[in-house]
This record gives sequence, structure tokens and C-alpha cells, in this order.
Amino acid sequence: MEDNIKSRVVGVDISVKRTTYAIVDVRGNIVAQDCFPTNDYPDVNEYISVLSEKILELTEANGGYDTIRSIGISAPSANFLTGCVENAANLPWKGIVPLAAMLRDRLGIAVGVANDAHVTALGEHAYGRAHGMKNFIIIALGHGIGSCIFSDGRAHLGYEGFAGEIGHTTYIPNGRECGCGQRGCMETYCAQKGIIITAKELLAESDKPSLMRNLAEINPRTIAECCEQGDELAVEVYRRTGEVLGFVLANYASIVDPEAIIFTGGIANAGHWLLDPACETFDKYVFRSIKGHVKFLLSSINNRERDVLGASALAWGIKEYSLFK
Amino acid sequence: MEDNIKSRVVGVDISVKRTTYAIVDVRGNIVAQDCFPTNDYPDVNEYISVLSEKILELTEANGGYDTIRSIGISAPSANFLTGCVENAANLPWKGIVPLAAMLRDRLGIAVGVANDAHVTALGEHAYGRAHGMKNFIIIALGHGIGSCIFSDGRAHLGYEGFAGEIGHTTYIPNGRECGCGQRGCMETYCAQKGIIITAKELLAESDKPSLMRNLAEINPRTIAECCEQGDELAVEVYRRTGEVLGFVLANYASIVDPEAIIFTGGIANAGHWLLDPACETFDKYVFRSIKGHVKFLLSSINNRERDVLGASALAWGIKEYSLFK
Repeated sequence: MEDNIKSRVVGVDISVKRTTYAIVDVRGNIVAQDCFPTNDYPDVNEYISVLSEKILELTEANGGYDTIRSIGISAPSANFLTGCVENAANLPWKGIVPLAAMLRDRLGIAVGVANDAHVTALGEHAYGRAHGMKNFIIIALGHGIGSCIFSDGRAHLGYEGFAGEIGHTTYIPNGRECGCGQRGCMETYCAQKGIIITAKELLAESDKPSLMRNLAEINPRTIAECCEQGDELAVEVYRRTGEVLGFVLANYASIVDPEAIIFTGGIANAGHWLLDPACETFDKYVFRSIKGHVKFLLSSINNRERDVLGASALAWGIKEYSLFK
Repeated sequence: MEDNIKSRVVGVDISVKRTTYAIVDVRGNIVAQDCFPTNDYPDVNEYISVLSEKILELTEANGGYDTIRSIGISAPSANFLTGCVENAANLPWKGIVPLAAMLRDRLGIAVGVANDAHVTALGEHAYGRAHGMKNFIIIALGHGIGSCIFSDGRAHLGYEGFAGEIGHTTYIPNGRECGCGQRGCMETYCAQKGIIITAKELLAESDKPSLMRNLAEINPRTIAECCEQGDELAVEVYRRTGEVLGFVLANYASIVDPEAIIFTGGIANAGHWLLDPACETFDKYVFRSIKGHVKFLLSSINNRERDVLGASALAWGIKEYSLFK
């Protein structure tokens, strides 16, 4: 009989602005949570020191560090297979940063890192819409578009951990310029910037009145608000966006055969304005054997909890290790 | 100490014309092999009786039926998850045929069925180019285009076993008519019929002389023969085909991140005429993190052995079961 079962994990979410860390129990209850500004620590060694101290403080104040089994970290451009954050465009640390090994060395327990879409998939599988599903796709719609394929109960990572780059599949050869250096990537139509471009194009090509013409800032949220007020051009922005999304997802689903496609991220808040036209176009193009079988679902985990919960699910999935055993 | 280790399996390949069955040992040696015409048995019960008898005959004449661990079957439209052949367009048996269960009931040992691309992937993994690879894609180029994703050492089948339908992803909305009822599927450009259409279109739109104009039959093989003789228009046929293939595979690889893409099937025999332009277009469109990492490989297993070897690999992978233990 083992009397030292470690019954909780720490989930960490590193975003450009903020690092959030939480103690999570086996049922996905967040026992305690805190955060600090990521950008205050441009030196990654200093960052790891601060993160270690803060995790120790939080856990000692809430049941003890010795109840913690492992730590999971969600970070942009993180690669689960290497444990590194690799050339993150927006984080203060450049190059290849072995974040998992660094934190493990400080804290003496197992640490895993993974990118946002991977972690989101684990979270939805453990605590959200994908609970009980073995094959599904996560689509994270935000500044970019990330995705993760769950294959037979496990995240499909690919040969080097780069799988899921649906945002950088080509929708229109020689189309809109993308930050990745290519042209016509689907995220130049369906992610934040792309939707704004579509709105501006529509406003320029049409003489129709539109609430969007009076917006202080045109962005996915304000466009969706115009939709709610019945603005025809705003509805058309999401219709065009949804058409691209539905087409791309039809091809994605024909390859992957998922039980469901689960949408997360700020742009998913547009809800039916985006997903109805996406669904319609999806049905038009998806392979006939799959047609009608793939559920389109919105994530059921609230935005505030999604990342640390997902990171906690990652923590449960990695091999236990302790310097203190 | 177990003294009754079953050291061999039977691999069966069911094609429209012919059923081939072979005894295969643990190293992929084909110990004995025979075949009979599939279409002689439009009644599936009669077919199963004949197949059972022939397997017993072959095994009794070659070391004994009691050395056989299990049976793997490759069949068009077969679904590994259900064990059924489901609405095969060209086989004599209509509807849903529980082939695995039927043969298991007759022979008293474990039987698995899977479709061509899945079985080919297992064969390449066990005995071919993909040996030692955990993440790769098989592309089978023939009358249609099948594919299979290997994810972390296992075939990705999807929710209902329909994964891998790259042939029916849409390349051009409202493009060429496809047998599946859609338009513009990539296989209407890259599979047998599509290549013939491209050749005929090119011959019609060009005044250039071409050896293809004198062919008794234009097909992928004869077009490739014209390429070998330096025929400019024939080379252009495969260049156009390769461009479509490379574009589609770039998007596929950006999603899946494979170590290699392995080509099999009759059309892959066109070799560099097809794969050089495919590779060039692939590099142009694939996501930058993956660019330069994905190997394009031709299957190393000869056509005569591929299907029964793959079926044998399937047989090794299924759970052992025996009425006679």
C-alpha cells in the first residue's frame, strides 16, 4: 500500500503577457491559482527562478508541495517531444529554450511542455467536450489558427512535433501574405487579421450602409457585435470567413475522420455567425462516408480556466519522477 | 515454457479479379502462396467456404495448420474497426459483409480485415521503406488514391475507420467530376482516369507532335514510356499531375508532419517524371518548419508480394485467438 500518492498537479500557462499557474486536483478542480507578467523576465534563467519560487509558495500555502505529482506547461511554440520552446515569435526568450528540463532541475519533479493546441486538446479530452472521444480535432481560432488531432485517444504530434499546422495549409496559391513567409495560408482568411482584412475589403467594395463603418476598431469581436444587431455586411464577413473555414475543414476531416471538430479561441465566440456557414460549406465538400457524422462543437471550458486545466491534463499524462522519493 | 508457439500467419489479398493467399513467417518470408478468381463466387458464403478450404489445404501441405497464428486480409472498402467489407463498389458481394467474423467462424483462429492503404502501411512498416519509422504517410496511386497515416507507430483509422481519404479532398471546387459524386476531388487529377484526361486535354490544346498521338491506348504506363523517349507533351502530363499531387501533399504534410511519404501503386511506377515536379511543388507550399524534412520514397516491396505481406503484418498485429487451444 502506497501512502504517498501525489494527488494534485500544477498547470502553467505561459502567454506573451502573463504566466498563470494553478494547483489542480484529479477531477479538474482548480484549488489555487495566481499569475505574474511574463515579460518582466527577459532572461529565461531568472524567469525559471521566479516561476519555481512562485510554484513552491502557492503549493506550500495550499496543502504542500509534496502533494504535487508533476507539472504541465502550455506555451506558444512549445514542442512536447523535445521539451523545448522553439523560436517563439512573441516570447522574450529567443532560440531553443529547454523549458521542461530547466524547471524539472529546479523543482525535482516531472515537467512537460506542449503548445497551446495540444494542451487544449488534452484539456477538452479530460474535462470538456471531448470527454470520452478517441478521435477528434481541436481548432483554436485566434491571432493564428492552431489545431491538434486526437488519434485513438492520444494527441498526434508527428515526426518532429509540428503536426496540426492547419493554419498554414494553402487555401489560395499566391493569395494573401502570411507571417510565415508563404502566401494564401488559410489563417490569412480565418484568423484575426484575415477577418479584419475581409471586413475592410467588403466595406470598400460595397456602398451599403454598415455599423462597421462607425466602429472605433474593427476586430472579430466588434464585427460579431454588429452581426448581433443585424448588420448585413458584418454577417457577410463571417459568412465569407466561414466558407473558407468549412472548405478547409472538409478536406481536413476527409483525411482524419474525426468524431467532432471542437472550436476554441476568441474568434469562436462569433458562434453561429461563423459556424453555420462553415458547417454548410463543410457538408458540401466533405467525403460522402463522413458527411453528417462530424459534430461541430464549441469548447465547454471557460476561457479563464482552459489553459491551466489543459496544462494540468498534460501533467497527469507524463511519467512520474521525483528527486525526493 | 510454451511449446505451441504459432510461428506463421496467413496473408490474404482480395482484389476484384483474384484472391491471393500466402503463408508468411515472422521475417516476412513467403513460405507458400496460391490464388483463385474472386469473381467465381458471387455468393459470399460459398466464397468463404472455398477460401477456408484452400487455406487449410495450403497450410496442411506446408508445415501444418496448427503453426498458423492468425489471418490478415486486405480488401477494398474493408474497415478494420468493424471487420467488415462495406459497400465495395467492385467486389461481387453487396452491402456490409462481416468477412472477418465469417472466416474466423470457419477456421477457428483470429482474422482481421483492413483496406488496401492500411494494409500497405503495415507492410511497409514491417518489411519495407517505413521500417523503423513511427510517423509516415502511405500514398497508393492507382485507379483511385488511397492513403494511410501512421501516427506514433500505429495506423490512424479515425472515428469510423474512414481516415486517409486524401483522394476525395477537394482540389478544385466544381472541378472534374468524381465517381464519389463530388467534383474536383484530387484523384480526378492524379489517379488513372485523371491522368488520361490530362493527356487528352493536352493533346487537344497543343499542336506539338507527340508519341502519345500514336498510342493504341493512352494510360499512365504508356505515357511514362513516352516520357522515357523524351516526349515533351508526355513529360508535361506528369508535370501537371505532379504539381497537383505536390500541392495536396504539402497541405497533408503540414497537418500530419510525417517523416516520409511513401508512394505505391501502378502510377508510382512513373517515378521521377511524377515525383520530381511533385517534390518541387511540395517544397513551395509546405509549412516552413517541415520543409526539407519530409522524405519522398518509393515502396521497396515488389508489387507481387506487397498485398499478402501487408496482410501478414495485419495478422501479426491482431489479438491471438484459437478454438483449438
